[in-house]
Amino acid sequence: MTQRAERMNAIQPFHVMALLARARELEAAGRSIIHMEIGEPDYVTPQPVIDAGIRALTEGHTHYTPAVGLAALRERISVFYRERYGVDVATRRIIITPGASAALQLVMAVLVNPGDTVLMADPGYPCNRNFVYLLNGEPQGLPVDASTDYQPGPAQVDAVWTPRTSALLVASPANPTGTLLTQQALSELYEVVMARNGSLVVDEIYHGLTYAAPASTALSVSDAIFVVNSFSKYFGMTGWRLGWLVAPQDYVADIDKLAQNLFLAAPTLAQYAALSAFEADNIAILEQRREVFRQRRDYLLPALRELGFDIPVTPEGAFYLYADCSRFTDDSYRFSKQLLEEAGVAITPGIDFGTHQPERHVRFAYTTSLEKLQEGVRRLREYLK
Amino acid sequence: MTQRAERMNAIQPFHVMALLARARELEAAGRSIIHMEIGEPDYVTPQPVIDAGIRALTEGHTHYTPAVGLAALRERISVFYRERYGVDVATRRIIITPGASAALQLVMAVLVNPGDTVLMADPGYPCNRNFVYLLNGEPQGLPVDASTDYQPGPAQVDAVWTPRTSALLVASPANPTGTLLTQQALSELYEVVMARNGSLVVDEIYHGLTYAAPASTALSVSDAIFVVNSFSKYFGMTGWRLGWLVAPQDYVADIDKLAQNLFLAAPTLAQYAALSAFEADNIAILEQRREVFRQRRDYLLPALRELGFDIPVTPEGAFYLYADCSRFTDDSYRFSKQLLEEAGVAITPGIDFGTHQPERHVRFAYTTSLEKLQEGVRRLREYLK
Repeated sequence: MTQRAERMNAIQPFHVMALLARARELEAAGRSIIHMEIGEPDYVTPQPVIDAGIRALTEGHTHYTPAVGLAALRERISVFYRERYGVDVATRRIIITPGASAALQLVMAVLVNPGDTVLMADPGYPCNRNFVYLLNGEPQGLPVDASTDYQPGPAQVDAVWTPRTSALLVASPANPTGTLLTQQALSELYEVVMARNGSLVVDEIYHGLTYAAPASTALSVSDAIFVVNSFSKYFGMTGWRLGWLVAPQDYVADIDKLAQNLFLAAPTLAQYAALSAFEADNIAILEQRREVFRQRRDYLLPALRELGFDIPVTPEGAFYLYADCSRFTDDSYRFSKQLLEEAGVAITPGIDFGTHQPERHVRFAYTTSLEKLQEGVRRLREYLK
Repeated sequence: MTQRAERMNAIQPFHVMALLARARELEAAGRSIIHMEIGEPDYVTPQPVIDAGIRALTEGHTHYTPAVGLAALRERISVFYRERYGVDVATRRIIITPGASAALQLVMAVLVNPGDTVLMADPGYPCNRNFVYLLNGEPQGLPVDASTDYQPGPAQVDAVWTPRTSALLVASPANPTGTLLTQQALSELYEVVMARNGSLVVDEIYHGLTYAAPASTALSVSDAIFVVNSFSKYFGMTGWRLGWLVAPQDYVADIDKLAQNLFLAAPTLAQYAALSAFEADNIAILEQRREVFRQRRDYLLPALRELGFDIPVTPEGAFYLYADCSRFTDDSYRFSKQLLEEAGVAITPGIDFGTHQPERHVRFAYTTSLEKLQEGVRRLREYLK
């Protein structure tokens, strides 16, 4: 083996991928596996968006768009913010990206110098720390637990902030815990970050998938916050690879320049199709799906608690339950492998989400039908008894 | 303005974008502009691929694929290498990417540590240096001119190599010059790079668009070379955002890990559609288009020479002519602006391609019809007389 950049030692693969590969092997050998590890909605994209994609193809929309995206889509998202949240977001601040992944990369690339620290919740979305490692920065996990709804608090952020800290990244709803940040909590975090001349980045990719009150957007708090969003989760468009970034106006020219160089543009077809994502007929379908996700959560949460998993905070969004499994194991990775091999249930071990007590946590995703979730619980009950 | 990563000072926007924006303004005001600045084929994607995209949508292929791409597409590309080049490329070494942009980013991220140097031709594709800046490395231009067909030579590479040099990046056919590297030249470059324990990366995204002999692939030289390719240019699929990377086997696990984190996967629909790109009916269309590009080159090259542009090497590939304009100006950027404003012809100034004599060069793209090219030449003749 020849040369290899040092960052590759820090960047970890998703451990769940090895479990998923083993699950596929077992299935190929005839075993039935209940998939509760998968972080994407089980639904196909709603028909109105598929129809819009077919129209775009028929009309020959196959060339590049501008690097910041189709003007019509940027405008439509601005209207969406006014309609759904009652907040004015200037169209010029909205940048269309190839998935929220690209949006996160763009934000980090304009903010993070080598050696800079970015603060983020632990447990949290696995890729976040790797966007920072890519740029030779240092992700710093903020250990969070049920006492703060698995969200970092302003005093915690302030206590660890140093002159080399460049940003705080939070998510609402969060992956893997499904908890939200209230507008008040977002305001308090923003105050701390601003006082330190840092940047606040808020991942809102699970917005829309909430089961009590709607989530607050950080855009209501300040125009100086970076907000990342996506067509993948609520809109059910994972494979289209389309997201967006709302940036403070001062950063838009830099982000445009980076997007030109790193991505050229988001997929054209996805952008044309997404124009239909906000129409009433499509939203009606999405709201029916949200209700189904709520029913799944309302079944799975008490069922897992009854089995002996500790889930102290009721998750209000996304499609995940983050469960303490220490009644059964002190090695959640081995436990996940055993559940797969011996019970035919696939879940995600805590190690994928950070270093704060991963060995005693697992994540269940309710991205499969109620019937399959019921069968999964039956298998777990049988195995754990 | 608050914090801003230092790399943003090094990363330049495409200067041609300002000219393109001005061209759009002039057109909105009723002016006719001949576009010879645009780096994508004027054709819509061929109908067989569009039809395959519609089928994929109808069948509901809207979920994520594996991070390294659809197995069937990776296999199809392997077969393509055997059919077209007579070279065996193991399927497991082929990684599907969201455009060649993502492939270039993946390669650089696994190779380049902060402070490392990457060698590349100057003039060359503008984004290349910015992928290196992103990672806090140092792109180092190798000045090239007509004496070596605008390609770096082994002695030149050897002379500037230092212990901090990690890779040499070359392109065949090259942008902006359209010149090729022979298999012999690729072998010689590879020998030098190997002797220095470095990596060779070859951009083959304009393969297929050659007008004399076909281009040689670096995969015929060694399995230890990184090769980047794309569905954008020859296959006419720019807006779909789909490319691929062939990596040495030792790097595949690292690249998979990075792709999982940085992109999740390439667009699903594009991957299904691309399965049809290699079929005989589609290739027949692509070959007809190649013949049209050849006719355009064969018209434009002597026409520009006759006007007084110096194009000492006949470009054998891509769809660009890189012309010395020093008979008319010592400021090619101002010259490009004047041609746009006063002659209604848009071209790309040399400054977008590097720092080696950019002020005396411009790039003409023949990505518009023969009729428009003829009108462009008529306008240039009128203006320059």
